[in-house]
Amino acid sequence: MEKTKLSVALIGSGRAGMIHARNFRSSVPFARIVAVCDVSEENAAAAAKELELETYFTDYHKVLDMDTVDAVIIATPTKYHCEIAVEAAGRGKHILCEKPMAMTVEECNRMDEAARIHGVTLQVAFMRRFDASFVEAKRLIDAGEIGDVVMVRSNTRGPSIPKPWMYDISKSNGPLAEVCSHDIDSLRWFTGADFKTVFAIGGNYRCPDAKKEFPDFYDNVVLNASFTNGCQGLIDGAQGVLYGYDARCEILGTKGCIYLGNTRENSVTLCKSDMQRREEYNNSWRTLFRDAYRAEDIDFVAAVLEERPPRVTAYDGKMAVLTVNAGNLSIREKRIVEIDGDCLR
Amino acid sequence: MEKTKLSVALIGSGRAGMIHARNFRSSVPFARIVAVCDVSEENAAAAAKELELETYFTDYHKVLDMDTVDAVIIATPTKYHCEIAVEAAGRGKHILCEKPMAMTVEECNRMDEAARIHGVTLQVAFMRRFDASFVEAKRLIDAGEIGDVVMVRSNTRGPSIPKPWMYDISKSNGPLAEVCSHDIDSLRWFTGADFKTVFAIGGNYRCPDAKKEFPDFYDNVVLNASFTNGCQGLIDGAQGVLYGYDARCEILGTKGCIYLGNTRENSVTLCKSDMQRREEYNNSWRTLFRDAYRAEDIDFVAAVLEERPPRVTAYDGKMAVLTVNAGNLSIREKRIVEIDGDCLR
Amino acid sequence: MEKTKLSVALIGSGRAGMIHARNFRSSVPFARIVAVCDVSEENAAAAAKELELETYFTDYHKVLDMDTVDAVIIATPTKYHCEIAVEAAGRGKHILCEKPMAMTVEECNRMDEAARIHGVTLQVAFMRRFDASFVEAKRLIDAGEIGDVVMVRSNTRGPSIPKPWMYDISKSNGPLAEVCSHDIDSLRWFTGADFKTVFAIGGNYRCPDAKKEFPDFYDNVVLNASFTNGCQGLIDGAQGVLYGYDARCEILGTKGCIYLGNTRENSVTLCKSDMQRREEYNNSWRTLFRDAYRAEDIDFVAAVLEERPPRVTAYDGKMAVLTVNAGNLSIREKRIVEIDGDCLR
Amino acid sequence: MEKTKLSVALIGSGRAGMIHARNFRSSVPFARIVAVCDVSEENAAAAAKELELETYFTDYHKVLDMDTVDAVIIATPTKYHCEIAVEAAGRGKHILCEKPMAMTVEECNRMDEAARIHGVTLQVAFMRRFDASFVEAKRLIDAGEIGDVVMVRSNTRGPSIPKPWMYDISKSNGPLAEVCSHDIDSLRWFTGADFKTVFAIGGNYRCPDAKKEFPDFYDNVVLNASFTNGCQGLIDGAQGVLYGYDARCEILGTKGCIYLGNTRENSVTLCKSDMQRREEYNNSWRTLFRDAYRAEDIDFVAAVLEERPPRVTAYDGKMAVLTVNAGNLSIREKRIVEIDGDCLR
Repeated sequence: MEKTKLSVALIGSGRAGMIHARNFRSSVPFARIVAVCDVSEENAAAAAKELELETYFTDYHKVLDMDTVDAVIIATPTKYHCEIAVEAAGRGKHILCEKPMAMTVEECNRMDEAARIHGVTLQVAFMRRFDASFVEAKRLIDAGEIGDVVMVRSNTRGPSIPKPWMYDISKSNGPLAEVCSHDIDSLRWFTGADFKTVFAIGGNYRCPDAKKEFPDFYDNVVLNASFTNGCQGLIDGAQGVLYGYDARCEILGTKGCIYLGNTRENSVTLCKSDMQRREEYNNSWRTLFRDAYRAEDIDFVAAVLEERPPRVTAYDGKMAVLTVNAGNLSIREKRIVEIDGDCLR
Repeated sequence: MEKTKLSVALIGSGRAGMIHARNFRSSVPFARIVAVCDVSEENAAAAAKELELETYFTDYHKVLDMDTVDAVIIATPTKYHCEIAVEAAGRGKHILCEKPMAMTVEECNRMDEAARIHGVTLQVAFMRRFDASFVEAKRLIDAGEIGDVVMVRSNTRGPSIPKPWMYDISKSNGPLAEVCSHDIDSLRWFTGADFKTVFAIGGNYRCPDAKKEFPDFYDNVVLNASFTNGCQGLIDGAQGVLYGYDARCEILGTKGCIYLGNTRENSVTLCKSDMQRREEYNNSWRTLFRDAYRAEDIDFVAAVLEERPPRVTAYDGKMAVLTVNAGNLSIREKRIVEIDGDCLR
Repeated sequence: MEKTKLSVALIGSGRAGMIHARNFRSSVPFARIVAVCDVSEENAAAAAKELELETYFTDYHKVLDMDTVDAVIIATPTKYHCEIAVEAAGRGKHILCEKPMAMTVEECNRMDEAARIHGVTLQVAFMRRFDASFVEAKRLIDAGEIGDVVMVRSNTRGPSIPKPWMYDISKSNGPLAEVCSHDIDSLRWFTGADFKTVFAIGGNYRCPDAKKEFPDFYDNVVLNASFTNGCQGLIDGAQGVLYGYDARCEILGTKGCIYLGNTRENSVTLCKSDMQRREEYNNSWRTLFRDAYRAEDIDFVAAVLEERPPRVTAYDGKMAVLTVNAGNLSIREKRIVEIDGDCLR
Repeated sequence: MEKTKLSVALIGSGRAGMIHARNFRSSVPFARIVAVCDVSEENAAAAAKELELETYFTDYHKVLDMDTVDAVIIATPTKYHCEIAVEAAGRGKHILCEKPMAMTVEECNRMDEAARIHGVTLQVAFMRRFDASFVEAKRLIDAGEIGDVVMVRSNTRGPSIPKPWMYDISKSNGPLAEVCSHDIDSLRWFTGADFKTVFAIGGNYRCPDAKKEFPDFYDNVVLNASFTNGCQGLIDGAQGVLYGYDARCEILGTKGCIYLGNTRENSVTLCKSDMQRREEYNNSWRTLFRDAYRAEDIDFVAAVLEERPPRVTAYDGKMAVLTVNAGNLSIREKRIVEIDGDCLR
């Protein structure tokens, strides 16, 4: 690639999408945002205005038609990821695809194949892998500071109340996909292995509206797992927890342990006359991982320009989807699910 | 009971036993230590000397023969608990029994029955229930501060290397019994319910010596569980972790969350020229729960003198043993185990 | 001394006094509490009852008359310390004297002299020197972990509202004596030197009642200091802060820094739906330094029985009084005060 | 001002200057960096390259000659601030001036006057006032959450070894200027008042090279102060502390207290087999206050474009310089210095 500046288009201008777009507008060297697209004209127009772009699109095909676009960020609802990615690859566009990568393993494979055939970069957006603390933890592990990894425990509990479209697990893949995709990826990354068995328990504790029509819906999940290299894993995930965005991870090794996770919104401690000291809980993944998103976007551009593999691959994306599916199957059928290649048993 | 001062004898003068004995010697009002017994004459003699007792015993029957003894603390290896407790009850001695209560549910039932028939108090020593922070957490839960309990997650990781006698899980009940009994009890206490299903995964990561002869031995375990009232639970346990004694617990409710657990040995933070700040990790359960042991002993005496039920009952002891057994069965047979009354399915 | 068990009497059964008395009753090996005295008959009677003593006194001379008393704890208001200590020494009683040692340097010298002449141990009760964290900090300093000490900063802010008897600084010596005596002693201990110059600023921010009649009264003070060995020091002290008992200390060295001080009452963190996490602030010096009092009492007994100097000497007590006086003079005359031997310039 | 985008030039491309320049290049809406100047051609050239500017300057007059430049960032050594600012104002350029504002009060006054006469914005770069945690603390104070402010305590200890040019305090104004300017400004901001009296003690603990030729040089300082509204203040500052960049602040009020300050570089806690847990100490003000610099730059642009006063004024800059001078006088003459208008007594 002879270009020195990558022109990027955003498809899907929701919350995560706009984080990327703002980065590409101002904080990613060697790249710029050149187009934005959203099925909602209102959203698309608002995004274009904020990004100081002269035009916007509601049909992503128009974006793919633009010769000036080198790469696309796919940040639509998950079910459209595959279709858009395959088409983008066919047009020679590099792809940064938001997590979860897709709904099924089969979709992931099609996306991966399309990228390979057309020689474009396909990076899946597990931004925690670019967070400075996660990067440091990985470095410490690789340096042997805690011996061999034995067990990884990770939780993500988000304050957002599940939206009605999430109630149908067969269409949304549920909280395991929406919030725990990150935990799943962290367990794979820190153990250096793939999930082998999964047992998950789900329950609906906060969404009484969903109970009648969607008895399978869960807003809280606990999962334990074994890995192909013999490690152990624990995940718990929740939506609608109200108290803040709580994402922490621990890596237990044979010679030590690493704790990861910042739960404070700022560094103010307020001590009051009720003899309680108060700290504001971290409000959102958007602030907590803001720098990680930027680092991720910068690295995506670098991978494209340097023609090297991305740091999070289609395989990583697929294995997370597979594990989400294994977890959901485990919850539904109340049994241990074994992962064997691309298959669940 | 007309007495105003309880005379207590210690049976088993190991580490936990001596914590109780020292408390009864000096820090428990309305009680005193009057006798000590250990199968090792050396241990018994050393304990008597430290406790300023004139004599000591190596046969616990001699202790039970003493009319002046009102109550016994049973802190022997677990496999002797049942025999001693049943006999002590028959002699009208009140009993504070170290955890785990016994090896099997059947033993627990015999101990409970003996205590009932002879009208003596039988308290199982889950000292965390008397720790000021655990007590405060329970109070906050009961006051509705975090809404309804959804999930409890607890871990105990201890620095001690497993002793060879622990290698045979069928005889030792393994780390689930030795370290996770406390987590199991905390999950029951904080959820206010009993375990319904258990799935556990064990592995031996630190004890290569045991691998050949004791392939079932594990020094690390992850467990997830459902409860009779619909709550979820997660436990992880480890022995030989080297970095310290790490006991923490979280209670996630519909309206908030409680974090529990002190991991610091003292309040010194040392900042050095390598730009690392250092804090000494909590060394041992003995320091961490020292005050909890004292509060437990005080409450045991109060329960006896006030003729009220103890705060930790034989039922609590039995359900912990049952859950340990369920976990070990789950690990061995790699399946989900259901708890139904006193039975495992 | 041939005795192996020290008989101790308490003179002044207020809050600090009773902490010692409870320790001597149950937690101090080789010692026992044998008598209690307080000018308030009600207090003395209550104390005797709690300590299971058959009698009590309202006149301390009666206590000194007891041949069975080996040592006295003086925990009366400061102005009586000298008189009682001198008399006790004359009767051959060892002395553990609460801080501040006395009102003036002259009194301190008389107490010291009496103890020397009569060959009794005189220990001043700066219990922080026996706190496990302070002891560890001192060990780290002495081991050279932070290089040479440059500066020590210490603060004590207490929740108690100043009592009216404190308003007259000439009689009470004010918050510098009541709460900052400890900070002053810590600065001396950690720098390994004596105060050379002191400049303090006081103000009354919380006690409007005192303003008219006692314009010199202060409930908040900031002080900076130089030391005989060239170190620097900072102290801030307050009474009536409402938010808790806040005692922290930092030792800055040429190669590192030590932070000291626990501000939490327990290890519970409560996260609620207002996205605030809450921790109970340490309520009182009584809980924070409970173990330090016990260690102090144990060490006092050891010093007496082993016939070795106490770890906190009359000189330490005197230098703290001198520094308090220097600070109060500085506040009153709004000038830098130099300490030269026992004199203030 | 009719323009909607501000063209900014950097004068002095050292560390702080480049932080601003990078912000203006990419992260400050409604502004762009258009020129860079440094007396070192090498520095200027490197800066231009990084900022993707086609040219660079070594003479700041050339920058002021550019009609396209709307505003300048002055980040040269302090002694050049006045000359450049006065000239820039004369050319109608808005000014963001790094701290300390100047060497003397007289210089500050000249700068302020020039800005007033020529109608340009002059903002002094106390970036802590734009840090999210400091802003939140100020909001809590103003909302009465801690009652009336009583005392503010602030420290800045930096890892950088003092450079030889700092040794001559009469030319460098020393650590009070270099690191404690921020503390001084925080005390003014949080108390809402000006310094009234200052007493400071300085010492040289880490720079033996400087001792002979520059006996007045200090690398550690403690300062206490009274304020025009009766508040109290404490500052300690240090250079070359090795263990990290340690900037913390406490605001004590009549009804509570606020602690401010993050001392961690990331959120990784490493627990190792020596039973120590380690956290990386915050390395530098550049990372700690990175977001604050950006917020400061954004607000500077907003103040210019909206034609409103800057949030940190020339008066704020001057009062910090005056207090630095008071502190240095106090150290040199070992006396309390009173601040009266622009004069020191």
